[in-house]
Amino acid sequence: MPPAHPVVRKVYLDLPQPSLKDNTADLDRLKKQVRQTLAIENLLVPFALIPQWVSLLRSSAYRVTASVSLAPPIPRLIDVEAGATSSRLFGLAVDLGTTRLAYQLWDLREGRLLDETGSDNPQIRYGADILTRIHRAGTPEGLQGLKEAVIGEINRVTQTLCQVHNLSPREILAVTVAGNTTMTHLFLGLDPSSICREPYIPKINSLDPLTAQELGLDLHPRAWAYVFPNVGSYLGGDVLAGILHSGLYQQEGLSLLVDVGTNAEVVLGNAEWLIGCAGAAGPALEGGVARMGMTAAEGAIDRVRIDPRTQELTYTVIGGGRPVGICGSGLIDLTAELFTAGIIDLRGKLNRKKAGRRWTETDGQPAFLVVPAEETAHGQAIVLSQVDLDVLLRSKAAMYTILTTLTQTVGYDLKDIERFYVAGAFGNHIDPRRAVILGMLPDLP
Amino acid sequence: MPPAHPVVRKVYLDLPQPSLKDNTADLDRLKKQVRQTLAIENLLVPFALIPQWVSLLRSSAYRVTASVSLAPPIPRLIDVEAGATSSRLFGLAVDLGTTRLAYQLWDLREGRLLDETGSDNPQIRYGADILTRIHRAGTPEGLQGLKEAVIGEINRVTQTLCQVHNLSPREILAVTVAGNTTMTHLFLGLDPSSICREPYIPKINSLDPLTAQELGLDLHPRAWAYVFPNVGSYLGGDVLAGILHSGLYQQEGLSLLVDVGTNAEVVLGNAEWLIGCAGAAGPALEGGVARMGMTAAEGAIDRVRIDPRTQELTYTVIGGGRPVGICGSGLIDLTAELFTAGIIDLRGKLNRKKAGRRWTETDGQPAFLVVPAEETAHGQAIVLSQVDLDVLLRSKAAMYTILTTLTQTVGYDLKDIERFYVAGAFGNHIDPRRAVILGMLPDLP
Repeated sequence: MPPAHPVVRKVYLDLPQPSLKDNTADLDRLKKQVRQTLAIENLLVPFALIPQWVSLLRSSAYRVTASVSLAPPIPRLIDVEAGATSSRLFGLAVDLGTTRLAYQLWDLREGRLLDETGSDNPQIRYGADILTRIHRAGTPEGLQGLKEAVIGEINRVTQTLCQVHNLSPREILAVTVAGNTTMTHLFLGLDPSSICREPYIPKINSLDPLTAQELGLDLHPRAWAYVFPNVGSYLGGDVLAGILHSGLYQQEGLSLLVDVGTNAEVVLGNAEWLIGCAGAAGPALEGGVARMGMTAAEGAIDRVRIDPRTQELTYTVIGGGRPVGICGSGLIDLTAELFTAGIIDLRGKLNRKKAGRRWTETDGQPAFLVVPAEETAHGQAIVLSQVDLDVLLRSKAAMYTILTTLTQTVGYDLKDIERFYVAGAFGNHIDPRRAVILGMLPDLP
Repeated sequence: MPPAHPVVRKVYLDLPQPSLKDNTADLDRLKKQVRQTLAIENLLVPFALIPQWVSLLRSSAYRVTASVSLAPPIPRLIDVEAGATSSRLFGLAVDLGTTRLAYQLWDLREGRLLDETGSDNPQIRYGADILTRIHRAGTPEGLQGLKEAVIGEINRVTQTLCQVHNLSPREILAVTVAGNTTMTHLFLGLDPSSICREPYIPKINSLDPLTAQELGLDLHPRAWAYVFPNVGSYLGGDVLAGILHSGLYQQEGLSLLVDVGTNAEVVLGNAEWLIGCAGAAGPALEGGVARMGMTAAEGAIDRVRIDPRTQELTYTVIGGGRPVGICGSGLIDLTAELFTAGIIDLRGKLNRKKAGRRWTETDGQPAFLVVPAEETAHGQAIVLSQVDLDVLLRSKAAMYTILTTLTQTVGYDLKDIERFYVAGAFGNHIDPRRAVILGMLPDLP
């Protein structure tokens, strides 16, 4: 189904031929028809392209296809092509995660998702965590390197996506980019240092729509490029994109959106009001902190079940192969199942007797054997130690505190929440029922 | 007096300092204050300048001067400077004549004309008349050469003007350019060939406002640059500028605007309606056609008087030196005086007896001696031959025909015209009373 409010449209124009009775100038003839067809008042035309486009009008006998971006604040003419090309119109959406980049390729004429994929954020080589990257961005070369790394990666993946779907990157006429405030700054080549220093002021929150060329993206050079605005230093464009996508802002009842990544961002509200909050979700949910923790990539255990009767443990692995580690959602799943099975007690301590033959030790600490060495990809056992568990429980406490504080601030109780949205790379894999059992997310009616 | 509706404004901003209670991002802080101060809804910010400007905000303790172009369709941020610079704000107006370029330098803060000057249009070396230039513009090199010639000349003269007034071209934040349709095309680098071929369609009439940089003008690179729109192939932006400047479009009574150059453009109307017409004014009014004809430059006789009693002839010369030739307005003046003195009869023929000792011959044709050889700059006599006179009278007839046709088309008579405006390089020097005597311009009540 074609989108109801497209940001970019292509219109085929069979313009009236010039005559002594209609001596409208060539470009004015084109603009007039586009404005009438799309019912718009203004239409900006890039000056440098005018000589080329007026020649094209004549050589194609005034039958052309015009591509127009319609988004506020002002419509723009993106391109003019000879003849009818209006069936080819594509869009790209990019999620700038600290760890992973996610992409969606859309057919904008049909409003249809063609493909989605992800790739590691290559800025990781400048530092796995955001603070290290902010530090590296303190020099012009560092900032430039961080910017080029992420833009180069987007261009590389886009090229591949286009090849798979037999289209040219030039046929992508719209691109949206959303990330947290720091990732957005690095993507734009803006020094993010002020974000982590009091009074925590970003360099920019709202950008005017740009062109792909201005951003360095290898799409149609004048493709409409929208970078989601940030709300503040710790509520970024990715959260706004989540609010938009979830439809939370249109709900009558109270809803909650949780975006769990390095930080947890939480938005509470309905069609009338929204309140947002960000806080450290705790290191347990980041890859590399728990002993066998990893990001939600191939080889990560993302779901765990323990049979209540037989105590038998089963798990699923992203990609289907042998496990390498356990990702954030797998960790929550595992902990919830261990608690249900009584292997973790109310104080959060591992119970040696209940763990049975899965009881083990690592670095002198009690631990639970998740996968024996002979079943893993690397031949090392995957275990959950008491230390890992303590960190996870502190994260859980942090998360619960964020939620409680936020709802109480506006005079509500967690029980008042009617709808629950979970976003983020972590959210893609989380099983909300497990998070509820863990007490990380509130019970919903 | 400051202009009532400035197209460009400078505003000094002492922005609220960032704090934990006001964590608006740097650029958003700036935009918000500019929008409030100028009462505008939108403000486009050039993306490439954002890193530089947000750094400047911090290094100047959030005390900056913003330059903003306010003209439709959308306000734009031109520049951000540290501290208070709002007293420096200049504008340039350029008239693109086929033969001469005219310039005005304005102080836009005070709404005061600082200087005006003129220079020869260097495109003359590609061809003195417009048709030759259109032909030369038929190749990309020719078109580029014509464009660069006029832009180079504007840059050269602007540089000189700025030096005289002790300002930098970068302080010029607004520029307007008006010319006939062909001159405008050449200035923009657009092939004008379609203008002189049926159905006489220009490539473009209306342009969005541009930046000086896009046009190749060495002013502030992002100076607001407005090229007056053309009405059609033979009614150009210069006529629109004339209508605007004269105020004809605001008059209740019927007014007539005549812009005499290579072509004569005539606009008739009032605050309710306007009708325009263009026609060949005849070669008599172009420099180089009459035997001693020349453009209205230094050395040209621009006014002539013949004492009704003594028949003594006096004249004035542009620049005050010895005469070189006679310009269009001088020719009209001379002919009107000769007619009043009876030296030209009703049929337009020179009367040998009345001419007396000024009777002479040139190339076997009767002629009138205007300035003897010993009084001219080049030692050759300046004469008006019967051939020159015949051409002039045909021009006069053409002009009168244009006026009569135009007024009759809308059901009026020349006598209904209440106000009369004369524009163009020619108009600067014409004495309307003489043109009336000649029958070139209508008698007004």
